[in-house]
Amino acid sequence: MPATFDVIIRNGMVATASDLFRCDIAIREGRIAALGDDLGRAEETLDAAGLLVTPGGIDSHCHMDQQAWEGQETCDDFRSGTRSAACGGTTTVIPFAMPLRGQSLRAVVEDYHARAKGKTLIDYAFHLVVSDPTPQVLGQDLPALIHDGCTSFKIYLTYEGLALDDYETMEVLDLARRERAMVMVHAENDGVVRWLTDRLLQSGKTEIKYHLAAHPAAGDREATHRAITFSELTGVPILITHVSHQAAAEQIRWAQGRGLKIYGETCPQYLFLSAEDIESHGMEGAKCICTPPPREKANQAHMWQGIQNGTFQVFSSDHSAHRYTEKIKGGPSAPFTSVALGVPGIELRMPLLMSEGVNKGRIDMQQFVALTATNHARLYGLYPRKGTIALGSDADFAIWDADREVTLRWQDLHDNVGYSPYEGRQLKGWPMTVVSRGRVVVENGKLNAGRGSGQFLPCASPDSAKPQGMTAPELQAISRFGLKPLF
Amino acid sequence: MPATFDVIIRNGMVATASDLFRCDIAIREGRIAALGDDLGRAEETLDAAGLLVTPGGIDSHCHMDQQAWEGQETCDDFRSGTRSAACGGTTTVIPFAMPLRGQSLRAVVEDYHARAKGKTLIDYAFHLVVSDPTPQVLGQDLPALIHDGCTSFKIYLTYEGLALDDYETMEVLDLARRERAMVMVHAENDGVVRWLTDRLLQSGKTEIKYHLAAHPAAGDREATHRAITFSELTGVPILITHVSHQAAAEQIRWAQGRGLKIYGETCPQYLFLSAEDIESHGMEGAKCICTPPPREKANQAHMWQGIQNGTFQVFSSDHSAHRYTEKIKGGPSAPFTSVALGVPGIELRMPLLMSEGVNKGRIDMQQFVALTATNHARLYGLYPRKGTIALGSDADFAIWDADREVTLRWQDLHDNVGYSPYEGRQLKGWPMTVVSRGRVVVENGKLNAGRGSGQFLPCASPDSAKPQGMTAPELQAISRFGLKPLF
Amino acid sequence: MPATFDVIIRNGMVATASDLFRCDIAIREGRIAALGDDLGRAEETLDAAGLLVTPGGIDSHCHMDQQAWEGQETCDDFRSGTRSAACGGTTTVIPFAMPLRGQSLRAVVEDYHARAKGKTLIDYAFHLVVSDPTPQVLGQDLPALIHDGCTSFKIYLTYEGLALDDYETMEVLDLARRERAMVMVHAENDGVVRWLTDRLLQSGKTEIKYHLAAHPAAGDREATHRAITFSELTGVPILITHVSHQAAAEQIRWAQGRGLKIYGETCPQYLFLSAEDIESHGMEGAKCICTPPPREKANQAHMWQGIQNGTFQVFSSDHSAHRYTEKIKGGPSAPFTSVALGVPGIELRMPLLMSEGVNKGRIDMQQFVALTATNHARLYGLYPRKGTIALGSDADFAIWDADREVTLRWQDLHDNVGYSPYEGRQLKGWPMTVVSRGRVVVENGKLNAGRGSGQFLPCASPDSAKPQGMTAPELQAISRFGLKPLF
Amino acid sequence: MPATFDVIIRNGMVATASDLFRCDIAIREGRIAALGDDLGRAEETLDAAGLLVTPGGIDSHCHMDQQAWEGQETCDDFRSGTRSAACGGTTTVIPFAMPLRGQSLRAVVEDYHARAKGKTLIDYAFHLVVSDPTPQVLGQDLPALIHDGCTSFKIYLTYEGLALDDYETMEVLDLARRERAMVMVHAENDGVVRWLTDRLLQSGKTEIKYHLAAHPAAGDREATHRAITFSELTGVPILITHVSHQAAAEQIRWAQGRGLKIYGETCPQYLFLSAEDIESHGMEGAKCICTPPPREKANQAHMWQGIQNGTFQVFSSDHSAHRYTEKIKGGPSAPFTSVALGVPGIELRMPLLMSEGVNKGRIDMQQFVALTATNHARLYGLYPRKGTIALGSDADFAIWDADREVTLRWQDLHDNVGYSPYEGRQLKGWPMTVVSRGRVVVENGKLNAGRGSGQFLPCASPDSAKPQGMTAPELQAISRFGLKPLF
Repeated sequence: MPATFDVIIRNGMVATASDLFRCDIAIREGRIAALGDDLGRAEETLDAAGLLVTPGGIDSHCHMDQQAWEGQETCDDFRSGTRSAACGGTTTVIPFAMPLRGQSLRAVVEDYHARAKGKTLIDYAFHLVVSDPTPQVLGQDLPALIHDGCTSFKIYLTYEGLALDDYETMEVLDLARRERAMVMVHAENDGVVRWLTDRLLQSGKTEIKYHLAAHPAAGDREATHRAITFSELTGVPILITHVSHQAAAEQIRWAQGRGLKIYGETCPQYLFLSAEDIESHGMEGAKCICTPPPREKANQAHMWQGIQNGTFQVFSSDHSAHRYTEKIKGGPSAPFTSVALGVPGIELRMPLLMSEGVNKGRIDMQQFVALTATNHARLYGLYPRKGTIALGSDADFAIWDADREVTLRWQDLHDNVGYSPYEGRQLKGWPMTVVSRGRVVVENGKLNAGRGSGQFLPCASPDSAKPQGMTAPELQAISRFGLKPLF
Repeated sequence: MPATFDVIIRNGMVATASDLFRCDIAIREGRIAALGDDLGRAEETLDAAGLLVTPGGIDSHCHMDQQAWEGQETCDDFRSGTRSAACGGTTTVIPFAMPLRGQSLRAVVEDYHARAKGKTLIDYAFHLVVSDPTPQVLGQDLPALIHDGCTSFKIYLTYEGLALDDYETMEVLDLARRERAMVMVHAENDGVVRWLTDRLLQSGKTEIKYHLAAHPAAGDREATHRAITFSELTGVPILITHVSHQAAAEQIRWAQGRGLKIYGETCPQYLFLSAEDIESHGMEGAKCICTPPPREKANQAHMWQGIQNGTFQVFSSDHSAHRYTEKIKGGPSAPFTSVALGVPGIELRMPLLMSEGVNKGRIDMQQFVALTATNHARLYGLYPRKGTIALGSDADFAIWDADREVTLRWQDLHDNVGYSPYEGRQLKGWPMTVVSRGRVVVENGKLNAGRGSGQFLPCASPDSAKPQGMTAPELQAISRFGLKPLF
Repeated sequence: MPATFDVIIRNGMVATASDLFRCDIAIREGRIAALGDDLGRAEETLDAAGLLVTPGGIDSHCHMDQQAWEGQETCDDFRSGTRSAACGGTTTVIPFAMPLRGQSLRAVVEDYHARAKGKTLIDYAFHLVVSDPTPQVLGQDLPALIHDGCTSFKIYLTYEGLALDDYETMEVLDLARRERAMVMVHAENDGVVRWLTDRLLQSGKTEIKYHLAAHPAAGDREATHRAITFSELTGVPILITHVSHQAAAEQIRWAQGRGLKIYGETCPQYLFLSAEDIESHGMEGAKCICTPPPREKANQAHMWQGIQNGTFQVFSSDHSAHRYTEKIKGGPSAPFTSVALGVPGIELRMPLLMSEGVNKGRIDMQQFVALTATNHARLYGLYPRKGTIALGSDADFAIWDADREVTLRWQDLHDNVGYSPYEGRQLKGWPMTVVSRGRVVVENGKLNAGRGSGQFLPCASPDSAKPQGMTAPELQAISRFGLKPLF
Repeated sequence: MPATFDVIIRNGMVATASDLFRCDIAIREGRIAALGDDLGRAEETLDAAGLLVTPGGIDSHCHMDQQAWEGQETCDDFRSGTRSAACGGTTTVIPFAMPLRGQSLRAVVEDYHARAKGKTLIDYAFHLVVSDPTPQVLGQDLPALIHDGCTSFKIYLTYEGLALDDYETMEVLDLARRERAMVMVHAENDGVVRWLTDRLLQSGKTEIKYHLAAHPAAGDREATHRAITFSELTGVPILITHVSHQAAAEQIRWAQGRGLKIYGETCPQYLFLSAEDIESHGMEGAKCICTPPPREKANQAHMWQGIQNGTFQVFSSDHSAHRYTEKIKGGPSAPFTSVALGVPGIELRMPLLMSEGVNKGRIDMQQFVALTATNHARLYGLYPRKGTIALGSDADFAIWDADREVTLRWQDLHDNVGYSPYEGRQLKGWPMTVVSRGRVVVENGKLNAGRGSGQFLPCASPDSAKPQGMTAPELQAISRFGLKPLF
């Protein structure tokens, strides 16, 4: 037995999406080389006694250095975004390569490679956005990019310049089926949003709080039902992004019950914020404006239920951050439509769920791992390299002091936002140390940015990812489309 | 670093309920001591190259050496039962300590300890059966036995001498809440079964096939709904055993969707047999008689759906075996009520699910592990000792040749039954080697009974199982459920 | 053409369960002899210009002169009960012939005939109560009484001395199918109620408000689901009485959606009272104690929804009245179980629904007629003699001033109760004049008791009621089992 | 009492949507003047002894003399169409004033007035079709036409040149709310139909049977859910036309259960035809081609269930007839898209429902009346003039020999079609005599066309229809729906 490893993490309580066991983890060349309790020597040793070791988080829904759409530049670039992510326990991000109007998909991806290069502290992949499904895009560009490792893309059912119509959606889903890509769907009804917005503005109902009336939950429910129908008819799995309300969640659960492969994602803003945060604070309400918006307080319990009963597979941040001055740059008389959309959350996603989910007994440790890491990796073709703690996987970890009490203050966060919608909350449990491919990028709560250096991760489609000599059940095992809750 | 282990299993593809990774497994003193790819030397080496290594199965619903009830002796004792189980990849069984009328619970358990002692090839625990909830039973006997490691018990809503009435069921569930036991419910409506049986017999409809009419799916659905109500009102999780039909499964899924902790179990007979097997073969139909019975062919797809979408957490055999001559000992003119109830399945449970589930792409490898091992261990307090492949867990494994094709013949099985309801089927995938606490009890398809020696496993309740120094989230992770006060 | 009628009601706006038309109604020998607008002369003329003429109400769920059960004598006998009914627009009542323990069904009916004789102001039929389904009862007494015109009976799933077990319920439903009787089901789970009551009393939770905790909505839901199952298995329609909560209503609607003939009844106390009325008034809360009890305030909207969408066919009072002193005769320290059960409502049933239903736009006039009269007549075999305004039907009417505003005061009511749960409410719409078989028993708000003289109404079963020469579709038309909402 | 009437129908069994009673009906000046049993003399007497008298049917979904759309001229003009309708018991039709591209709504209505004038045997109204919701249309033309008595209009969610997008649909529904019009929705997903059609044609799947694959039930379900959402958000009732499948019916029932005013219509082709009729007869399958198409055989039972449980309020023909030669004029190699859409049914709608519904015991007589007449009148503002048998209503009747057995032959029908999809069926029950405003237009099975002369019926909106001196509940009774403000 070789005597030495690069790093050994000793005595931690290690969690995976199904298990919890105390052991040492040995790392060599950025990968997990052994799990045991007396593994020998290493260059570097981390003492995790009394701490929890989870897979580093994967945030599969976030926006960084994005300037494309409607001139709403995000305030976090790949440096601040991945720094903030890492400080919250996340070691992989999958932001969007968001096209400017007229830009080819290939050009977008190259642009985002350039934006990310040299700035990322942790590893990253890209989701594409398909808003212009021409024959060129569907016949050549998209298949080529899927082949190159961008195997997921988002489509929008609303937003001018982004929204696909129903025919196009069928076309794009059919392409995803043929090329084995994962489609993420932003499910709001475009006509509903536009019509209500027009009526509200015409009626002089322009204040920030009317953003809520312009984005009713029934519109999400409708678009979710419709997307499910397209998925059913084309025979391809889809993921409904940022589910905000019980009504849409029920559609997803109904589809899952009928045997359809419909996946659901929700985000911190739907568990921890509510319409009240938008309605009751005048212009400050803008800080919590995103689409779909947080819903009535009573809805939060339903979203927790969706997390508990397996309706949602992934818990993402949808980090789309703008400074408050940018959000309200139209001034007090500007209508709600002028508010830049999106809330920050990339750093607090995991601590919020650890504190309010695990520590309060709503979910168990394994569900936490599945929701923050493993299921993201499986859905987007990063598994088994990312998302778990197993031999051969990347040595990405969040090491938690589960008893640490923290009062959230935006000044303590590592993004560029300048405020937090969660300001002042008390959390219990914090990722003190974060490891990316064996390198300690956060150490006892201190950023160690010099040690970070993210790599681009080409994502697999099941076929292209076929390891040598795998049997049918082995292949089946890493298929993206078989995610189910343990309990 | 200690240079040697007792056993090393090399080069296998290792599966857990969430992961799949290629690694070596080192065993010392019957436990997993290390996972890695170059772990050193061992007394014994198993080459698993090209093979799949899963946790040894847990069959948490089976009957052995049971003579108690209605004189229907099962034909398998602990020797033949555990031999058959092991040959099918199962390394832990939890049969019932089934009381004779008037016997105290303590006496029953002692009796079953005696029946098992020295005969079992693999490890075992006992479920109790509570049919006589006197103050003595609820106030003293049951709490004491739970404390001693029999932390689960079954209740019946039908069968003379076993059935509890609604008041008693509430009482017993409340006890389970206080003492932290897991309650399994046999959910058929007693009045329905008795009334229909009486009418059928009075009408001269006595043939074997009328067993189906006497046990309608609507009766299961009703009892399932009722049990859910009792669980909801007492605030304690329950498991519905041997769910046979979509109608009951829908009730379970409805409850799960409302946030209740209702667990579901199904069995091979509901995926692979159907009413046709009973109706179309005259007296031979008796071979497939059990309660609830297999349902119409179209229902099988719904049961698969329940497996896929997480309605069912555990897949058990409900092995309750009688020789054919015993089943029909009343002769051709005896009514359907004289047929001994139950079908064999302890040996084929895992091969059937591997072949028709994993190899046919209905579920993935991880779901297979969860359904056959991990979830059983978690629900019944055997986790993390049993049910997974993780450091410190018992070295219990099934090692599969996933490509092996097998034609089922009852003569090849290791039970005492003398027939198989699955005779002649073609399966793909077989557990060639089975390891129990590090001892190879089946080797390349050959039973190595001399090496087996099962131990009794006391099951944990979360509180009594509290490991030293565990943090709140760690505890949460192994807790089966959160309790709330009644009023 | 005969020149004269006994009575003509002129110029009213006449409502049936499907229609609304302005016309004169001519009456001869207590029956409707013509509908038109220039019908000739009559002995007596009522001017209904500006008024609404509806069929006299049928209250198919009320208790009068009942002393049988648990010593809780009702305070209204047939005189005060029918007087109060008439003053609220009701012209037919169907109280229960409630057995004392050990009394034969035949003796009970004779007893109630004696109690009613000479005292009733309006017509009446009897429901039976089947609590002791012996072979004698099922084989002889019940069929004979059905033949004699008592074609409906109630069964209880709870209450000591009344409750049937599941086997008996199946047996009784099967009898109803064979003999074509209508079964009414009191659907609460007996074990749930008894167990919770025992626990509450043992915990010292004896105050009146704990009546609510002892009768949880989930217990009603369960018993409703169970009764539906028995109906499904025996193939006979049933009616679930006094549905109190959305949870039970959903079960009924689910069954109706599956094509089962499950009928639902609700009562004023579930639309207009709530748990608050019991919880917030100390001992006075006893005035609103009944089973099942009124539920949380938010549930009222769901009950209205059930009325609007056709889940409920009949709206009855379940008038079961006790004076307040009787209700609390155990004194302040007596437990909730000592409170006599039931609330008054026979006089306000129709005015409450007219005011809050029709006048507030929740239902239309035709739904009002169906809910208060027509559907009762059809379900219980009194149609077409009672329940509508059509040629040949009995001349039973309520003539409403739909604009009249009334403040409810118990002193203005005509029962013997001495309080009203609805004290102080403002209603709009009142039945100023009430006609029973052509006799004006209430005239412009004044009781004219001397003119009343009720008759016993034998109820039909479809077969025995077969009019001479009816064709199949005609027969189908008067079948009880085809009630559906118009809209 | 005036001694004479124009006509008296004697001794019939008269049915309304809620009642059944034997009486004579006296008619004066085309209206019902009295109901009684000894009403005096009349110019003309019809003996209805042993016969059933129902309100004359209203067929609120049919197409006549329509040349507008896609060059698919219907073969029935207003003469043959109303002749055929009358011979099947229908006395009012509401065909569509279907615009040619570019035609103003006003011009369309004038055109259809011209087409109908002098040709109709029975009374008629018009539905509009809104396909081009410009400000001119929504702001002026449509309100003016609603004011003139065209108070209902259909919108399409599919078909090139007709389909509205979601924004337009919201806009149009909002207009309907403000102007109190009834909106009928053709609910198929346009993108689904077009995409599947393109794929089928591209794959060479052009045969007639592929029409079924191009119009999947899931597409109807989706569009139904979407329309419900728009109705919910704008607060206006809608009617889903020609519901073909359980999946869409479930959406409607779900909405109704939530308290929304969603109405449903189904047609004979979904009860009596199936996919098999299209798939199994080569080109002859074209005879049963319509959209949505008849579905799988097992679906018929679900459609009956929707009729029985009140999901559907109206049963219409969607008569849209083309001669067979016209249907297949593209010849054997023409793709399925070239088949003219629509099936005949205006004459058999009522006989089919009487025979298979009433005579076979699936529905009762009153449901038959509601489904074929009363509910149509109430939904479209023709009530109480049309749709019932009540004083003051038009004297429109179908007089049925409920025992008459008829074998359907297309030569016996009175349309211009030249075939019938129901050829050869055996029916029981036929409308021997049909009366339109007191004139006998069909007498003992013989057309008496000379006596017919249809009038245009302006339809009411509740407000404009307010009769003098009506009280609030009276108004409520004829109001179709209660409006609430948008925000």
